[in-house]
Amino acid sequence: MMSVLTLITALICCSFTGETANVSSPNIIIMLMDDMGWGDLGVLGQPSKETPHLDAMAAQGMLLPNFYTANPLCSPSRASLLTGRLPVRNGFYTTNAHARNAYTPQEIVGGISKDEILLPRLLKKKGYVSKIVGKWHLGHRPQHLPLETGFDEWFGAPNCHFGPYNSSFRPNVPVYNNSEMLGRFYEEFEINIKTGESNLTQIYLQESLDFILRQAEAGQPFFLYWTPDSTHAPVYASRPFLGKSQRGRYGDAVMELDYSVGQILSQLRTLGIDNNTFVFFTSDNGAALISAPHQGGSNGPFLCGKQTTFEGGMREPAIAWWPGTIEEGTVNFQLANVMDLFTTSLALAGISPPDDRTLDGLDLTPVLLSRPHTLQDRPIFYYRGNELMAVRLGQHKAHYWTWSNSLQEFKEGIDFCPGQNVPEVTTHDQREHSPYPILFHLGRDPGEKFPIRVFNPEYNEVLNRISPVVEQHQKSLVPGIPQLNMCDLSVMNWAPAGCEKLGKCLKGPKSEPWKCDWPH
Amino acid sequence: MMSVLTLITALICCSFTGETANVSSPNIIIMLMDDMGWGDLGVLGQPSKETPHLDAMAAQGMLLPNFYTANPLCSPSRASLLTGRLPVRNGFYTTNAHARNAYTPQEIVGGISKDEILLPRLLKKKGYVSKIVGKWHLGHRPQHLPLETGFDEWFGAPNCHFGPYNSSFRPNVPVYNNSEMLGRFYEEFEINIKTGESNLTQIYLQESLDFILRQAEAGQPFFLYWTPDSTHAPVYASRPFLGKSQRGRYGDAVMELDYSVGQILSQLRTLGIDNNTFVFFTSDNGAALISAPHQGGSNGPFLCGKQTTFEGGMREPAIAWWPGTIEEGTVNFQLANVMDLFTTSLALAGISPPDDRTLDGLDLTPVLLSRPHTLQDRPIFYYRGNELMAVRLGQHKAHYWTWSNSLQEFKEGIDFCPGQNVPEVTTHDQREHSPYPILFHLGRDPGEKFPIRVFNPEYNEVLNRISPVVEQHQKSLVPGIPQLNMCDLSVMNWAPAGCEKLGKCLKGPKSEPWKCDWPH
Repeated sequence: MMSVLTLITALICCSFTGETANVSSPNIIIMLMDDMGWGDLGVLGQPSKETPHLDAMAAQGMLLPNFYTANPLCSPSRASLLTGRLPVRNGFYTTNAHARNAYTPQEIVGGISKDEILLPRLLKKKGYVSKIVGKWHLGHRPQHLPLETGFDEWFGAPNCHFGPYNSSFRPNVPVYNNSEMLGRFYEEFEINIKTGESNLTQIYLQESLDFILRQAEAGQPFFLYWTPDSTHAPVYASRPFLGKSQRGRYGDAVMELDYSVGQILSQLRTLGIDNNTFVFFTSDNGAALISAPHQGGSNGPFLCGKQTTFEGGMREPAIAWWPGTIEEGTVNFQLANVMDLFTTSLALAGISPPDDRTLDGLDLTPVLLSRPHTLQDRPIFYYRGNELMAVRLGQHKAHYWTWSNSLQEFKEGIDFCPGQNVPEVTTHDQREHSPYPILFHLGRDPGEKFPIRVFNPEYNEVLNRISPVVEQHQKSLVPGIPQLNMCDLSVMNWAPAGCEKLGKCLKGPKSEPWKCDWPH
Repeated sequence: MMSVLTLITALICCSFTGETANVSSPNIIIMLMDDMGWGDLGVLGQPSKETPHLDAMAAQGMLLPNFYTANPLCSPSRASLLTGRLPVRNGFYTTNAHARNAYTPQEIVGGISKDEILLPRLLKKKGYVSKIVGKWHLGHRPQHLPLETGFDEWFGAPNCHFGPYNSSFRPNVPVYNNSEMLGRFYEEFEINIKTGESNLTQIYLQESLDFILRQAEAGQPFFLYWTPDSTHAPVYASRPFLGKSQRGRYGDAVMELDYSVGQILSQLRTLGIDNNTFVFFTSDNGAALISAPHQGGSNGPFLCGKQTTFEGGMREPAIAWWPGTIEEGTVNFQLANVMDLFTTSLALAGISPPDDRTLDGLDLTPVLLSRPHTLQDRPIFYYRGNELMAVRLGQHKAHYWTWSNSLQEFKEGIDFCPGQNVPEVTTHDQREHSPYPILFHLGRDPGEKFPIRVFNPEYNEVLNRISPVVEQHQKSLVPGIPQLNMCDLSVMNWAPAGCEKLGKCLKGPKSEPWKCDWPH
């Protein structure tokens, strides 16, 4: 029988250990939305003001109006978040053509390189249990899936929920539970394209709440990477939310995600772990204006959308929340991006970042946690594929290349800048401006509509500050091996792990790889 | 010696009278900004988030995201606010050409008609003392000035602060204290065009605070119409605010106005009359994108700006504040406009509106004061001069005419829609669409970029609801006599009342009236 002294010691020990873990290893939740735009949140000016939970989250935490993605497309953006590195370094780009956005459709051969170190793998060092709930998008072949890259659990899909497909030319995308498929979109996991009804967001929410509960009960620090995709076309919502928004179906999806955010934060409070959980809300790229207005969101006052390196393509809604630690009701103007979430998460967990590679992410803890906040001077790089299109430094942005999409695509009705047309800026050819970059002051002109004239003294003053930063960046850049060059119909999700048990294996075609065509 | 009983009776009497007055006649403050856009407030999505006092005002009161002006230009908008009637009824329009915006420059012969009944005149019935502090803009000839139309006090100017002028071809605009001039802009009232420095906003603030204090001490209900103009080009701010904004000089002006709002609300609290004062903040028209980015603001996600009947020209920031009476932290989606402020103010004061004329304003008290709020179905009419350009009903807007400005003006660099171009919508000719109005759903598409196609069933369904409303409106409309047709250099502010005392009288030219040219 244990002596009273031993019992007391044990209690002190455990309580102490617990507290240390709490302080040095807070739980981390990254909420990454899909194609949600900066202007979709009430607190960021959506006229419908239909995001009460996100607005409350901002009021209880910190809003970062100058937060960026690393690329105006989903896969590279997500790869950057989890590696802390630009796509051009981590390989999530293509060299098949100049300045093209590439991602991971079902026919992609590549995925996240095994040489990359992902956040959950590093978090393991401090005992974190990591789960991704939702869309993965870093490759769907077995070696690229979440559990191969450091996640302990996964509930969700490897690719976008495009479809339905008839399973002969193209299989429906599988939904996994950990390392085995549970079913497929449009089959076991219904999305009604006509009505927009689907319970997926509710399922993703429940998976997240269950995970949080389990980890809280186990007293183990966790990393939850919550990546619902209902705001990506085809947008969907569950029945209680359908038809509720002033904004149509897209707004219904936003309302359900907003509700889910509220549920997750509420769960943290109920479990008493809100003071020990760092939550960050953002999106993978700008709103897909090509799908607007029924299936796409809003980039507020910003120019163009997803696929472009204008502000509408790359500036993201961003809220940091950590009651008692992050000062409530603050707005912080730090230039920051999704790669910072990698570095910052490591800093919060007390883990040194890898020192054998270049990281693009900044440790934001001085910005998030210190009072007064320390602003750090740093550039934002806007890449499209293998090309540095633009750079932001302070309030100024310099465009070295401009392109919306080709005139041919545009004439076919593919428009990334509907209703917007800034001469020499929203160009339909890839236009190089390196000798005289197009300069904007984003404070005065967040919509990139009024280029600073070359003969204005401000022009040279600014360029003299930006040029060395760009030169240094480009000189020292060692591009990674591009992972998104090759396509092959045989690699599609014909027979995901677990398909035999379910009788859901399909037979694909023979391997006939080709260089993927990335039109924009 | 007064008996104790008499004393008690007197106290009860007075206290009772006081309370009745308080309940039925709250003080009314209308804060009308000049060319401030919907997107200039942090709470409405300005990325710089530099309006903490306005954001707090919204958090303590009610935000109305669907609030409109009556005309996309200053003078007609202001005339409508004070008369509760559309410009086409109250005469603040022109028939010199079709669908033109007209206002009151110094050469205008007309002004507010003596047949119109202005809000302060009616408020007198309940003992209100009314003061306007700032820009008037309903005519500058003696018979049109504020003290002739019901205001008890005035500190400010009759026209815009354009200039400086050399006083030979055009006099500088006078600043009045009540019925006599105190000096002129650029002379006694400095505006440094080069640096943007001016103390005018501070002077207007002090005048307002003094008035509020005097009325509170006198225990008399008051109407303060606060109309500072520092966000109208040439924009200005006082030295402590210059260079403070991320947005340049325009932002400096916004910050100073935001500070002033904070000071006024704080004064109400200090005096203990905040629970008895209805405050409404809005703007006269959309941001003047023609002056952006240095001297013009932001219309957020909306199309075009001042001078146009797109949302950017006519949707206004709007906050209602009345602690203890208006529920705090609410957002109300009622379609409302500046003319409602006339009718609502009368309702708050317990005064019947005039019954001998058509009023366009709605009594918003059921919307503002009741819980839950009652939304009223009503149309919003978008006029440009004498033409009904568009109508909003519910979430839908129908454009019967479209026009930004003439191709000739546009080619000269006058652009009301910089960087925006919606085919068939932002037209450079006056284009009639009456047979097939261009329809938008403003919930899904607040930026008016995706017209609903004519063969979409939604099109006919909506038009069947809007058409009878338009027909009824147009059938019953009796236009007022247009007051803004004639111009004459002799009527300019050469010799305003009080000029002799100051030695500031100028000699103007002989009367040579002409039909004013309103180019857009």
